[in-house]
Amino acid sequence: MMRQRKILQNVEGYVPGEQPKFPNIVKLNTNENPYPPSPKVVEAVRRLNENAIRKYPDTVSLELRSALAAHYGYPGPEWVVVSNGMDELLAMAMRAFTDPNDKILSCYPTYILYEKLALLHGARPVLIDLDDDFLLTEQFFETAARLCFLPRPNSPSGVAVPQQDVDRFCRVFDGLVVIDEAYVDFSDDSCIDFAKKFDNAIVMRTMSKSFSMAGMRVGFGFAQPDLVAELMKVKDSYNMSAASQAAGLAALDDKDWMEANIAKVRATRARLTDELIRLGFAVPPSRSNFVLAQWNGTPNARNIFESLRERAIVVRYFNAWRLENALRITVGTDSEIDTLLAALREILNK
Amino acid sequence: MMRQRKILQNVEGYVPGEQPKFPNIVKLNTNENPYPPSPKVVEAVRRLNENAIRKYPDTVSLELRSALAAHYGYPGPEWVVVSNGMDELLAMAMRAFTDPNDKILSCYPTYILYEKLALLHGARPVLIDLDDDFLLTEQFFETAARLCFLPRPNSPSGVAVPQQDVDRFCRVFDGLVVIDEAYVDFSDDSCIDFAKKFDNAIVMRTMSKSFSMAGMRVGFGFAQPDLVAELMKVKDSYNMSAASQAAGLAALDDKDWMEANIAKVRATRARLTDELIRLGFAVPPSRSNFVLAQWNGTPNARNIFESLRERAIVVRYFNAWRLENALRITVGTDSEIDTLLAALREILNK
Repeated sequence: MMRQRKILQNVEGYVPGEQPKFPNIVKLNTNENPYPPSPKVVEAVRRLNENAIRKYPDTVSLELRSALAAHYGYPGPEWVVVSNGMDELLAMAMRAFTDPNDKILSCYPTYILYEKLALLHGARPVLIDLDDDFLLTEQFFETAARLCFLPRPNSPSGVAVPQQDVDRFCRVFDGLVVIDEAYVDFSDDSCIDFAKKFDNAIVMRTMSKSFSMAGMRVGFGFAQPDLVAELMKVKDSYNMSAASQAAGLAALDDKDWMEANIAKVRATRARLTDELIRLGFAVPPSRSNFVLAQWNGTPNARNIFESLRERAIVVRYFNAWRLENALRITVGTDSEIDTLLAALREILNK
Repeated sequence: MMRQRKILQNVEGYVPGEQPKFPNIVKLNTNENPYPPSPKVVEAVRRLNENAIRKYPDTVSLELRSALAAHYGYPGPEWVVVSNGMDELLAMAMRAFTDPNDKILSCYPTYILYEKLALLHGARPVLIDLDDDFLLTEQFFETAARLCFLPRPNSPSGVAVPQQDVDRFCRVFDGLVVIDEAYVDFSDDSCIDFAKKFDNAIVMRTMSKSFSMAGMRVGFGFAQPDLVAELMKVKDSYNMSAASQAAGLAALDDKDWMEANIAKVRATRARLTDELIRLGFAVPPSRSNFVLAQWNGTPNARNIFESLRERAIVVRYFNAWRLENALRITVGTDSEIDTLLAALREILNK
């Protein structure tokens, strides 16, 4: 196309996991929380009145940012930024802190969006292979770049690199470190304080997973105020709808609900992991709400994926290097996981 | 700050019109619709259930785009793009179709965001002065650029350039034309078909003004499918929340409601314009839901702005060339406008 930017010629838009429509589906492909959001969140959305819909929302989401600061132990809203889902915040970090042609560091395999965001910005993604345990290598620590996307836990492995590795990386890396903690509520520990400790770190979170609010698009991040000020420059003026701000506030008001759901997901994750290993899969230790089930037998992973799909069980298959022999499986409800495991036993004749 | 991009050094974030908090305010500064959204919209938001909140929304907003295509006479959803408010769509057009250092054309005075978006992208804004009637000059037609933001009606003048000028511009301009129709529902005619007629035009709309839905962030645009495909590449994966998609769909289902509100706003606009002229203001013919009240007397416009503010009546004052002697006044309810006019008579001793 004549008007196309050169840098977009070979870029596909990010292709999200499919949202299939057939009924009674067991949907274990996009890492949604299987449990509902807090009733307080549902109520907050229901309570939105004519005026909240009619008027512009708070352009700087002050109430939500203040609540997030209080909740996560930051001095005030000037340390917090909120976004229309965490994806928007990842994109904002690129636009606020990197120039075209800059090197953007991340690891492989990881969230595909990091590379896409770099390409869309005309920057140069540098992906350093993780080791066989999906941990960071020395090469990663030694690579210079303007910005690094460092997910913990990572997807699709589910693995959380040791916290001290993130600490060490923030110390040695000359650029900005985006610590992507989208899945961290399912882990044992977090780097939530790192934006206080390091002036080159932005810690990012989402309400899509642990808070069961993917439909409401609430992402947030913590960073030193001068970094937050730069992010605010590049954000859309009214990036958070009245509904998203209200839902986010309500969610913080019922953290017990979220934590009870997390406990259930973690228990199911342990059982799922054990059963998969029993069936012959290799499963890296997941600190997320999904597991990577690696498989070298017959039928191959892709065939298993397709056989599951025929049974209306949808998991994620990545047709990519190091992932051809694996399925990423979201931790669903116990009953969904029972259905999955029964189907796997059937497919594998076990 | 060490990590700052050079291009952001002199960029302020867009400063939106203030959202003052004092009670009983007459708020005529951010062009919100004074009338409530359709009860169907409120109901659609209330009906959002746990699952809509829990799960990812449709990443490509297919149902909403299809409804928009049907509603506005386009062949199908591949001609339509939706966005988290129209501001996001303006930014997406920059990212999809312009490279850093490209020239970006617009007029002056106009929506301040166009220039900011160009600067944030590292592009070069070229603003051509409008004539004394806020219409396009020959120089505008003769200026080459990669992309042009052409608002109709324009803000803060409220003036809609003749439709045939937009037609002529699309024919002679070599770049992409973003026809910003944010306010067009308050006008007598629109360029809604121009994306069918011209392969270099994107027609953009918003539900913030005419549909009384600024809080829900629903923008949309029409363009040839190859242009839409490029816009989809640069959009956030899940840019439209479940709430925004549901509200947008419901709004289309009750266009009568919106049109009844528009009729009221237009009637009030006529009365406001007449009264302002009677008081000695010069008012360009507005096709929007606001008017630009130009004033060369004593006290000056800024003092009038401040005196109004002391009376809890907030209008918009732009401290900028050609606008120092003017107030932009949103068309509120009849009673709000009566309050404004009474205050103006008092301030001006008339």
